Order: sequence, then structure tokens, then C-alpha cells
Amino acid sequence: MGTTHVVVLGAGFGGLSAVRQLARDRNVRVTLIDRNNYHLFQPLLYQVAIAGLEAPQIAWPVRAILRRYPNVRFLMGNVESVDTMDRCVWVDGKAVSYDYLVVAVGSASHDYGVPGVREYAIPLKSLQHAICIRDRVFSAAEEAVRTVSPSRRRALLTFVVVGAGPTGVELAGALAELKRHVLQRDYPEIPAEEISIVLVEAGERPLPLLSPAASEYTTKTLERMGVQVLTSRVVSEVTPFGVTLQDGSFIHAHTVIWTAGVKGVALPGLPSGRGGRIHTTPTLSVPEAPEVYVVGDLNYMEQGGKPLPQVAPLAKQQGACAGRNILRRIHGKPEVPFRYWDKGTLVTIGRNHAVGEVRGLRFTGILAWLTWLAVHIYYLTGMRNRLMVLGNWIYSYLTYDFAVRVIHSPHQFPYPEESVESAEEVGVAQP
Amino acid sequence: MGTTHVVVLGAGFGGLSAVRQLARDRNVRVTLIDRNNYHLFQPLLYQVAIAGLEAPQIAWPVRAILRRYPNVRFLMGNVESVDTMDRCVWVDGKAVSYDYLVVAVGSASHDYGVPGVREYAIPLKSLQHAICIRDRVFSAAEEAVRTVSPSRRRALLTFVVVGAGPTGVELAGALAELKRHVLQRDYPEIPAEEISIVLVEAGERPLPLLSPAASEYTTKTLERMGVQVLTSRVVSEVTPFGVTLQDGSFIHAHTVIWTAGVKGVALPGLPSGRGGRIHTTPTLSVPEAPEVYVVGDLNYMEQGGKPLPQVAPLAKQQGACAGRNILRRIHGKPEVPFRYWDKGTLVTIGRNHAVGEVRGLRFTGILAWLTWLAVHIYYLTGMRNRLMVLGNWIYSYLTYDFAVRVIHSPHQFPYPEESVESAEEVGVAQP
Repeated sequence: MGTTHVVVLGAGFGGLSAVRQLARDRNVRVTLIDRNNYHLFQPLLYQVAIAGLEAPQIAWPVRAILRRYPNVRFLMGNVESVDTMDRCVWVDGKAVSYDYLVVAVGSASHDYGVPGVREYAIPLKSLQHAICIRDRVFSAAEEAVRTVSPSRRRALLTFVVVGAGPTGVELAGALAELKRHVLQRDYPEIPAEEISIVLVEAGERPLPLLSPAASEYTTKTLERMGVQVLTSRVVSEVTPFGVTLQDGSFIHAHTVIWTAGVKGVALPGLPSGRGGRIHTTPTLSVPEAPEVYVVGDLNYMEQGGKPLPQVAPLAKQQGACAGRNILRRIHGKPEVPFRYWDKGTLVTIGRNHAVGEVRGLRFTGILAWLTWLAVHIYYLTGMRNRLMVLGNWIYSYLTYDFAVRVIHSPHQFPYPEESVESAEEVGVAQP
Repeated sequence: MGTTHVVVLGAGFGGLSAVRQLARDRNVRVTLIDRNNYHLFQPLLYQVAIAGLEAPQIAWPVRAILRRYPNVRFLMGNVESVDTMDRCVWVDGKAVSYDYLVVAVGSASHDYGVPGVREYAIPLKSLQHAICIRDRVFSAAEEAVRTVSPSRRRALLTFVVVGAGPTGVELAGALAELKRHVLQRDYPEIPAEEISIVLVEAGERPLPLLSPAASEYTTKTLERMGVQVLTSRVVSEVTPFGVTLQDGSFIHAHTVIWTAGVKGVALPGLPSGRGGRIHTTPTLSVPEAPEVYVVGDLNYMEQGGKPLPQVAPLAKQQGACAGRNILRRIHGKPEVPFRYWDKGTLVTIGRNHAVGEVRGLRFTGILAWLTWLAVHIYYLTGMRNRLMVLGNWIYSYLTYDFAVRVIHSPHQFPYPEESVESAEEVGVAQP
């Protein structure tokens, strides 16, 4: 066993990528720490939220990944703080010392201080969030069946997605397909026009990272699928009954999903910059603590004068770079600066529809959609998960069905307090 | 739409089977009520508990089943009571009236008054229970990795199953395979001898419904797989730290699973006999309220001087019989008495090992095991679930892997209060 101990915080794309590099050198001992016992394939989280995939199909046990690396240990626990002076991290009240540290704890949902977001909107960053959204959507449909008042039914069946980045667009498109192919078939009691999906974006267009032409294609496709796309609208408050916009209008909706932005996960003992991200040197280490490397969503770096995006391919590339740099330092070699290799962006909108841009080249429609499918299957961890996800997709494609519509914990929807007749509203409408 | 309204309570084997009969007659209007939006395939619940299957693979949305029946409605809700005078059931504070009622709400775990069972033992009757057991087993292993004291590690890694009926035997066998093929490979830090699976049975032998020879085969197979089989031992108390037996001995264990017995789910307004079951006429109706039929685990009937068992095939046959009898009454025909057609019993113990008895004929080993596989795939609801489960089984069989080892909510294990050094116990054992 080696004498150099590297601790890696976070088993996401960045952390695992660093571990894979470090594990090659049998003189290095690695401890990977995460609060979950699985690696989550976040790009497909929205498919769990709309009952297309089962939660464990995008979560792969960390220990299964680490079986092949005898010099890597896993520790499940909550990282409380980092002590860069004594070179240790505190995990559930116990110190774990390190020679080098890779921090890859990622990002969390950012509410930008908008009131009610934390309490009443659901983010989409964890398996629990995805299952919560699934429970909420199907609970809302069941509650609507029991509800006599059409206005309450509409509020139950209006699903607002805030933020038209890739996650928001993919989720809104998938909800529209859920409405059309599942909800309308399963709930003949509910008139189709009472179900609405609304996508609210503060900026001028969806997918601002892509070109205006790609955004236009996205808006058109979403609208044809039945999604209401509201751009240049800023949310000023979220309540249990809906969303207030800055122009004073109010959208009645019992389900609000917040994908408007992320911030770096704060870790006491480490510096924190804009958006909670940590500025690093070009070799990915923290200037104040050169044994500490920061990779992924938590890292803040600029390239070509622009901040690097918070996406999975970047996290993977940074994790690998940090791992290699640590090995180079151990062996007395000079470190290499990080260079982001942009593989492009691919966003799926719905059946046969996706939009992508690779190095300025735009492609849309079924070709982009098939590429999206292939890329996501390829990057999934574990052959079993690849086959399971592929099987589910083929099933859904052929049957127009999203099969995983199991409600684990039914949601209790509130009644407006001012409504006196609310107690009368739960009715059993007889055909 | 018909004028006769039949309400069916419970979307289990009995309730669905009744609905399928009733739906054939388009003059009948059926309302199916369940607190869950899915039909649960209970016989495979233990496989969810040991990470072999994903929860939605054994849960099928009720509305997907009902799509083909235009005269059947589904209502998700909690049934609070039955009013046999006014012929209505109360669901979440609202009355639903009926002309005929089929009660198929099944059974719940029975603690026989043993202290601590309700608080500290986990039953295995719902998806939530199965996921709770899975979370507990893997949380225990992760906690053991962080624990320095060997005695606490042993208590964390001792899994006690109380009750050696089919569920207990199948679960204990599956836990032994989980230990051997997953835990020992994933946790090289944990010595294999610290992981124990204990099956405790109050009677003289496991699987008392089968012949003594079948029980002997079961005990031998379980013991060869590493399960400690304790018979003629009665549990007198369960605590967070283990199980006390009537002979005064104590098994240190942080995880106790209770499969020792079931009782009928009590429904205010209906009579209730021994074990919470409701005595019915041979045509399955309640003597005091002839419009009310009771089927499945909740029904108490004798045949050949012996009480009928509480198993899935019986529930299905009774559900179909009750449905047919209601249709016969509507059409002025005489009812037919219920006759149980015993298809035999099949219990799987582990890889290539099962035991079965059909009409006095015993079969064991790989033939019984393959039959068990085929029967369970055949009776699963939904082609998608059949393919998914089959895929998972082939994967597990080839790789010796149970892939669904995702911890959804980590369990916090208690420390013994008297232990002063307990606070020191969470340590990070370095290799």
C-alpha cells in the first residue's frame, strides 16, 4: 500500500473521473467519500421524474464501480468541513486526513432569493427530487379525479417548470408527452384541456447557450407539443397555490419545478466566490491551499474570457486532469493546465425531436434525437443499466407508455384558506 | 351505463380478479378503490428487499390494467369504514354508495402482542417495507465499515428473520446469497464471519404447510447457504439492539424482519373473527350483509374441516367467484359455492434450489426452482414487468450480482446507552 493518501469528495462525474486516474498508480491510496452509496447519472434524472425510467437504472452503486481498484476505499458519510491547515476533512464528526484532496461535491439548486422557492418548488438535482416530482404529478391527477371544482382541478393539473435551460426544456417536453400519451389515456374523467405544462424563462429565449435558431426550433417544437413557453418572465414568488410573475400576473399551479439555476455546494473551510464556485489555478488547485483541487460544477475557471459551463463532460475532464496532476506532483513532474474540450450540446425535446450544436454546427430533428439516445446509453455506468434503460426506451417508443407511474408517498394538496366551500370539494364524480 | 353499482375495495389479487369478472357485464358499473395507485405483486416483494428487483417492476399501475374496461372507474383513497345499512363506504370523509360490495383489502403483519415488534421490527407487506429493508441492510454495511468495535459491527451485520413461512424462508435464503455474492465482494473491509443471517421459527420446522421431508430439505439447504435456522424458539421481545427469546437468550441484531404472521385488515362496520378474518357463507358473502362479499386474506372459510390458507391463488379464485356470484344475482340466477382448487406450493430457497408440493407430490432442487421462476414470470402483471424481471434474473444469475443496491434514506443505527465509549466508535479504519 502506498504512502500518499488522496481523498476525493463526491462520487459524481468529476470525483469518479479523478478516482479512475488516481487508481492507476498503486503507490497511491484513495478514499472516496459521498453521502450516497451510488453514482447518479444526472442527465437522465428528468426521465425518472416523468415515470419513464426507474430510479436505480440511473444510479449505480459506488462499490460496484470500485471493485476493480484494490487501492481505493469508499466511505459513505456527510462531509462537514475541510481543514486545509491540518489537511483533513471532517466526516460525521470524525477527521480523515489527506495528502491531496479533490473536491467534487457539485452544485445545488439556486433560488436567487425568490421567496417560496425553497419551501414550495421542487428542484431536480437528486433521486429524491425526481421521485418527489413523479409522486406529485400522479397524486395531482388522482386528486383531480376526486375534485368537483374545475378551477381547483386546473390548478392541480398545471405543471410549471421554471428555467428553460437543458433540464427545464427536457422536463417540459417530457411532461407534454406524459400528458398526451399517459394522463389522457389513464384519466378519461379529466378533460385534456385542463392539463397544462408551462415553461417560464427569465431570459429572452430557451436554451440561451445555443444559437437563436436552435432556440426558435425549441420553442416551436415545444409549442406544437402543447407546452406554453413564456420567455422574458421573471418569477417573483412561489406559493403552494402557484407562481407570481414580476409583471403581477399569477399562474395557478400546485406543482412548480425549479430548474432556473445552480450554485456550488458550500463547504466550510474552503473559499467561495460568485455563485458559490471556487476560483482555481489553471491546474485546478486552490491558490490558498495547493494540495486541494476543485473540479466540476464547484470549480470556477475562465477560458477564452468566458466562464466554463457547469456540465457533466467538463466535470469528467477536470476530474481526470486533477487526478493526473496529483500523480505528476507525486512523481516530481510539472503539472499541466486544464483545457476544456467542448464536445457540444445536445438537448432532447420529445419523441423524434432534439436539438444539438457541436462546434457551431447545428443539427435538429430525428438525427439529433438518435444521437442523443446513443450518447446517453454510451455514457451510462454499468452494462445492466444500459440494457435496462434501452429496454425501457424501446418499450416506451413502441407503446407510447411511461410505465413507472408508481406513487410512493401521495402528496396532500392544500385548499385555499379563504375558500369556504373547500371542504365540499372532494367529491366522487359518478359517470 | 348500467344501473347496478359494484364497489370493489382493494386492487390486490382478489379485488382485481373480481373486477375482471364484473367488467364483462356492461350493465354493471364498477368502482375500484385502493390507497395505492398500483397493483402489487406481493410474492416477489422479498426480491425488492434484497436489491434483486426494482420496486416498480412488481408494481403495475391500476389505471393501466383498467384501460380496457370502460365500465370500471378507479378511485385512489383510504377506505375508513363500511356502512352496511345505508350501503355505502366512507373514503377520505366522503360516502360512495354501492349495490354490491367486494371487500378485498387483504392482511397486515400480526405482532401477536410481542413487545417491540411494531416499533423495531420491519414487516414485509408493502413496497415501502421492502425499500426500508433494502435501505437498512446496505446502511448497516456502510455503518459497519465506519465502526471500530467488533461487537457493534456484528450487531449491525446480523439480520434476524422471524417466522419461517414461505416469505421468511425466501427472504433468509436471498439474504444469504446477498451476503455471499454482494456484501463479501463489495465490503472487503468486513470479515465474512461477522455477517450472519438468523431465521427464527416458533414451530418445530420451517414451512409447516409442507411435509416434514420438505422442511428437512429446506433446513439443510438454508444451513448449507450459511443461514442459522433456529426452530422451536419463540420471540418474546424486539428492541433496537436485538431479539429476546423465551428461553432467555438474546440475539444482538440491529435489523429484525417480522414475517411471523398476518391478520385481516380491520374495517369498521364489518364483523371480525379470529385473526381479524371475516366468516362468510360458502358463496363468499357476509351472513349479516348479503350484498357484501369478502375475498382473499380477509376471508375466513373452512374446507374439508381446515381453514383455507391466506395465499395469492386463493384470493384470485375467491375474487373471480365473488364477481360471478354478483353477476348471477343481478341476472336472477342462483349463486355457486366457492371451491378452492389447490395448485400446490412452491418456495424458492436460493440459486437452483426450491421446494414444492403439488397434490402430495414433492419436488425439490433445480426442477422446482425453474418451475418457480416460470410460474412467477407467468403470473406477473404486464408484459413490460415480465421482461424486466426476467432480464434482471438472467443478469443476476450470470453475474452473481444484485444490482439495485441504492440506499434511498440511510438508517441511523442507535448506540447502546450504557456504552460510554460509544462516541468513540465511529472510526475510519485505514487499511
